Amino acid sequence: MNALQERILKEGKVLGGGILKVDSFVNHQVDPTLMDECGRDFAKRFAHVGATKILTAEISGIAPALTTGIHMGLPVVYARKTKPITMPDQVYLTLAPSHTKGRMVELIVSPEYLANNEKVLIIDDFLASGQTILGLVRLAEASGSKVVGIGALIEKIFEGGRNALMSVDVPIESVACIKSLDNGKIEFVD
Amino acid sequence: MNALQERILKEGKVLGGGILKVDSFVNHQVDPTLMDECGRDFAKRFAHVGATKILTAEISGIAPALTTGIHMGLPVVYARKTKPITMPDQVYLTLAPSHTKGRMVELIVSPEYLANNEKVLIIDDFLASGQTILGLVRLAEASGSKVVGIGALIEKIFEGGRNALMSVDVPIESVACIKSLDNGKIEFVD
Repeated sequence: MNALQERILKEGKVLGGGILKVDSFVNHQVDPTLMDECGRDFAKRFAHVGATKILTAEISGIAPALTTGIHMGLPVVYARKTKPITMPDQVYLTLAPSHTKGRMVELIVSPEYLANNEKVLIIDDFLASGQTILGLVRLAEASGSKVVGIGALIEKIFEGGRNALMSVDVPIESVACIKSLDNGKIEFVD
Repeated sequence: MNALQERILKEGKVLGGGILKVDSFVNHQVDPTLMDECGRDFAKRFAHVGATKILTAEISGIAPALTTGIHMGLPVVYARKTKPITMPDQVYLTLAPSHTKGRMVELIVSPEYLANNEKVLIIDDFLASGQTILGLVRLAEASGSKVVGIGALIEKIFEGGRNALMSVDVPIESVACIKSLDNGKIEFVD
């Protein structure tokens, strides 16, 4: 069992609707040492894919994407959910449903930082239905870049994201892969 | 001249209204190596303040707060601007004006992660008018914690934030302190 799995068992809380609350070390309070360890893990797992840029979605993807970027020496772009005034008028924009917000959210990237021909490694906190990550894939492809890998801290395999991402045909890695949250019990894939 | 200052001179863009666009290495695309260096710098500058927790505001404060947390071995809490469904009903909430959004934003912290008697080091990307950081100070004080230091990657000293924070009476450190953006020219404090 790795450090993230141990922490999930110790502090993760199973809420209703298949939601796993990890606000004490990932989503509101962040454990930088654990994130750094996960970033090192991703860097090892994706060392062979030839990535030139890391792409994530604000807000919770930033921490694992940043530590992965530290260990791979790659820039990180985080898709914005609202367009700041510093962004040009022409942007890449897509919509993705947010599980925890219960509505569609925009994912926006400026063409300034996602140019043609990048090899994009997508890193996020959760892989659940895969819809946010599919949104990031659409942004990368719209810019003429190629996705070369997908990594998530925590995968909820029973929500089908891995199948939804099958057409992308790249390595998909998760640090903690959860088989079931039934009856409030967290079970990892062996 | 430090690495952040050099990067600001090279890639920072002065927009109207005293806005400095640093979207290519801080606010949309992030340079993880530079952030790591700034985190190491903050860790050195605040080594003596006895901090037990780092507090920042989503979104752009997360990167420098996280790297500071890595180098100080401290947990990072980021104040949310919208309340996620995983957060309890009772929260610490304050309002702060957002310069780049042109409206008031909420800053919300769960009492689960900001307990009584923490010694809080506040880290953010910008120190401009100081209003966001003052909001974080109010959240820390509401929880019964004490602010022991304030750090910003980039300070725009002509916007008066340092004066606005005088009553907090703690060390204030910025990695790049800007004296003027007049006529589109970036001038640092010597």
